[in-house]
Amino acid sequence: MTDTPLSLSFNPAGIELDRRQGLSRQLYQALRVRVLDGRLASGTRLPASRDLAAALAISRNSVVRAYDQLYAEGFIEGRVGDGTYVAQLPQTALTAKKLSTNLSTGLRTGLSTALSTKPLNLPVVSSSKVIHNAALSRVENNHLAAPPSGPPRAFRVGVPAFDLFPFEVWAKLNAAFWRKPDLQQLCYGDPAGDERLRGMIAAYLRSSRGLQCSAEQIVITSGAQQGISLCAQLLVEPGDGVAVENPGYRAAGHAFAVAGARLHGVAVDSEGIDCRELAGLSDCRLAYVTPSHQYPTGVVMSLARRLELLAWAERAQGWIVEDDYDGEYRYSGAPLAPLAALDRQGRVLYVGTFGKVAFPALRLGYLVLPPALVQAFSQRRAVDVRHSEVSTQAVMAEFMAAGHFQRHIRRMRRAALNRRNTLLAGWPQDIPGIGSLPSVAAGLHLTVMVDSQARERELIDKAASVDVEINGLSSYWLPDSQTPQDQRAGLVLGFAAVPEAQISDALGRLAKVWR
Amino acid sequence: MTDTPLSLSFNPAGIELDRRQGLSRQLYQALRVRVLDGRLASGTRLPASRDLAAALAISRNSVVRAYDQLYAEGFIEGRVGDGTYVAQLPQTALTAKKLSTNLSTGLRTGLSTALSTKPLNLPVVSSSKVIHNAALSRVENNHLAAPPSGPPRAFRVGVPAFDLFPFEVWAKLNAAFWRKPDLQQLCYGDPAGDERLRGMIAAYLRSSRGLQCSAEQIVITSGAQQGISLCAQLLVEPGDGVAVENPGYRAAGHAFAVAGARLHGVAVDSEGIDCRELAGLSDCRLAYVTPSHQYPTGVVMSLARRLELLAWAERAQGWIVEDDYDGEYRYSGAPLAPLAALDRQGRVLYVGTFGKVAFPALRLGYLVLPPALVQAFSQRRAVDVRHSEVSTQAVMAEFMAAGHFQRHIRRMRRAALNRRNTLLAGWPQDIPGIGSLPSVAAGLHLTVMVDSQARERELIDKAASVDVEINGLSSYWLPDSQTPQDQRAGLVLGFAAVPEAQISDALGRLAKVWR
Repeated sequence: MTDTPLSLSFNPAGIELDRRQGLSRQLYQALRVRVLDGRLASGTRLPASRDLAAALAISRNSVVRAYDQLYAEGFIEGRVGDGTYVAQLPQTALTAKKLSTNLSTGLRTGLSTALSTKPLNLPVVSSSKVIHNAALSRVENNHLAAPPSGPPRAFRVGVPAFDLFPFEVWAKLNAAFWRKPDLQQLCYGDPAGDERLRGMIAAYLRSSRGLQCSAEQIVITSGAQQGISLCAQLLVEPGDGVAVENPGYRAAGHAFAVAGARLHGVAVDSEGIDCRELAGLSDCRLAYVTPSHQYPTGVVMSLARRLELLAWAERAQGWIVEDDYDGEYRYSGAPLAPLAALDRQGRVLYVGTFGKVAFPALRLGYLVLPPALVQAFSQRRAVDVRHSEVSTQAVMAEFMAAGHFQRHIRRMRRAALNRRNTLLAGWPQDIPGIGSLPSVAAGLHLTVMVDSQARERELIDKAASVDVEINGLSSYWLPDSQTPQDQRAGLVLGFAAVPEAQISDALGRLAKVWR
Repeated sequence: MTDTPLSLSFNPAGIELDRRQGLSRQLYQALRVRVLDGRLASGTRLPASRDLAAALAISRNSVVRAYDQLYAEGFIEGRVGDGTYVAQLPQTALTAKKLSTNLSTGLRTGLSTALSTKPLNLPVVSSSKVIHNAALSRVENNHLAAPPSGPPRAFRVGVPAFDLFPFEVWAKLNAAFWRKPDLQQLCYGDPAGDERLRGMIAAYLRSSRGLQCSAEQIVITSGAQQGISLCAQLLVEPGDGVAVENPGYRAAGHAFAVAGARLHGVAVDSEGIDCRELAGLSDCRLAYVTPSHQYPTGVVMSLARRLELLAWAERAQGWIVEDDYDGEYRYSGAPLAPLAALDRQGRVLYVGTFGKVAFPALRLGYLVLPPALVQAFSQRRAVDVRHSEVSTQAVMAEFMAAGHFQRHIRRMRRAALNRRNTLLAGWPQDIPGIGSLPSVAAGLHLTVMVDSQARERELIDKAASVDVEINGLSSYWLPDSQTPQDQRAGLVLGFAAVPEAQISDALGRLAKVWR
């Protein structure tokens, strides 16, 4: 460890590892926190993995895994023939760091100010219900808010390989719960949710997602949509601007619009949401984003962009709602650490769901909240619905405690990867008007561009005629988007919903009908 | 049947009964509809049961049962030594009748007007979030919105005899569902809920509650609270007045307050909510009521008052949210027909729950909506939460289809009656400051008046010291009530939560500590 952040050498002496726990993860955490707080400045050269392993008396393998993860997340970068360096992070990150010298004080002060002034912000003549009703009428014509039902088929979006769910295990755990229920559990419960499940989720997020959080920060919801909706109801005043990615997840936009928000669609480039455009929105204090795997474009938000976004939230005294809907699915490297794990200011509300690991109809999700927000969310939930159904929560807690959940995630990731590969390998070539396939490093769907909206419509209709389901990228845009119509065209395909054989069949039918 | 509504004689020739179905219920329906539409005017003398039975060629027993129900609901009345007459109904009922000559037209016109003008009602400078936050902070200190958890004990309010729930059956049905799930059911579903369950609920309400409704009018919710909350979110503009019973169910008030309502507490007399006071509230278009068994006073709303309330809703172009939270529990006569069954104008939203028949933590309830409102509610629900968890709905549908539900209701009613009797029989006599016990014809709790709030506090604290849970009636009043503090005092006791032996024990402890 060096005292001057500009030092070009790296001294690992300050890193202490607990040998009873995962060494690679500890090292990763230790290095990451030092990059973030400036102790390891941009451009600092890191020791070769062999040297660091020797200095810390751990295996070289542990160092390589830690470096890999830091590399995947953008904290460090390699220079050919020259070694490994701390990456160049944007200036905004340094600002954020300076302002957060005392984390806990900063957190409480910032939040209590925001919370206490909120009730005094009388909205200017509110047109909330106008928006509200307009939003509801839009929902009607939007497949995103009312996803297709009917038996799963290729290439339904938003559905994992739930044919692989261990239903027999789930049935047994359910029967066991109901046969000897704890009568106390059947009365009214904690609006924040089942205590044991909250603990299991926090432990899972800490170990698998690098998100340091406690059970007290978790609020169980009936799926991700309810989590987003709660954020909208509690954080948005009628008339407030809310930034959403454009194209993006329209059902989230609906939830904010119903709460009275004026939606601003913000462009997404190859690094994620455009923070310069965001910063130009003067009435906007909340941004809804999907950093792990932008929905629907598939962009993974870069570390630099993440830090810029956090700095924006702090400047704006605003909030970031991070929807990590498919963060478990990462096909190269470990899953990226979510935005909430980088948040030092208590400004990120993390939305998680079991719907993409188990199946959507389970309606089980959760929020990870900055500690200062937990009470308000719990209270609102008590008024809205009291709490979620008891057995689903208890059974999921047992499913996690017994190790089924972790095993199932691995199984689901493998399955999604195989299904992705089947789609990529069998994709019909040289179809006029269709762009090239993207590389798909994460998630459960891919997006491919199309020349024009007319062509998009034609391709989708032809697909439907041979019983293949494809979403049009154009339907993910806000209606008042500036981007020309034809540049909004594309195909969005979910590749996980059905087994490989059905995918191949569907591709065969597509190739025929599209030629 | 007579042509002149003022005729004192009654000709049953117009009544046609289908002999393949329940004759007593058909006769009851036929007579009721004739009273409501004026064909049987107030004061009309009905034939003796023996004569009517002969005229219709049915058993006298069937006529007696129909008369009993009409009597219980206030449609007919006996005059000692003189026979049975159609009751004197209020003038407002006749008004309502006249205005609703063409039911279906009236319904659609009234609703579409109300719905289409709604978005144009820009609220006057809205203090919605002030109320909202005030409401949230009130929730914190209110046991009604955050009901006590911990193991059930005497005399917890709001909890049925769920120790009698057939958990073994429920476990088997759950396991059966999960062992062979229909994969289609595990994707996203209809926001209004499971189709089969909606059909079963509609059939149950038609046959057991006299509520003519179709599956299409049912929207499944996660418990009654979510149903109330949905009504609040969709029908209340910030700043609107909303009438609630005072004393009343505070958690419902919170849901309306969170939606921006200005709450008006309206007095409850021996016939139910005071409609004259209600009519004097000029800014008020929505009333939340518990007609079957007022919460917490236990008053059953009279027929005259029900008709007055419906007439108010029509005049105000408003809505009535009818919370029938414990309508299954009626110890003398059949359950009263709910307000929604008398509604000809599509102005009643009926809130039902399985929480008081099964157990609260099931979080399964439903709304029965006027047809014109169903789409808006479904859409809003899709944005809020998509839909309810799948297995609870499917298992309840099977539970109902297999006859377990009806059997269980009978078992629960018997149990609640026995537990009520144990409480009434063992209630400590001559405790200073406690009023006389009411007769308890319905529900799962009773309320007894107390001389002063100081005495209420004292009695409750002493009860708590011997592990007996009692709610103070004073906590059910709105904070700004006009009624003097000491006249708000009382004890609210739930008698169903624990078996008779525990009730007797608790009464013994109370007698000791209260003397």
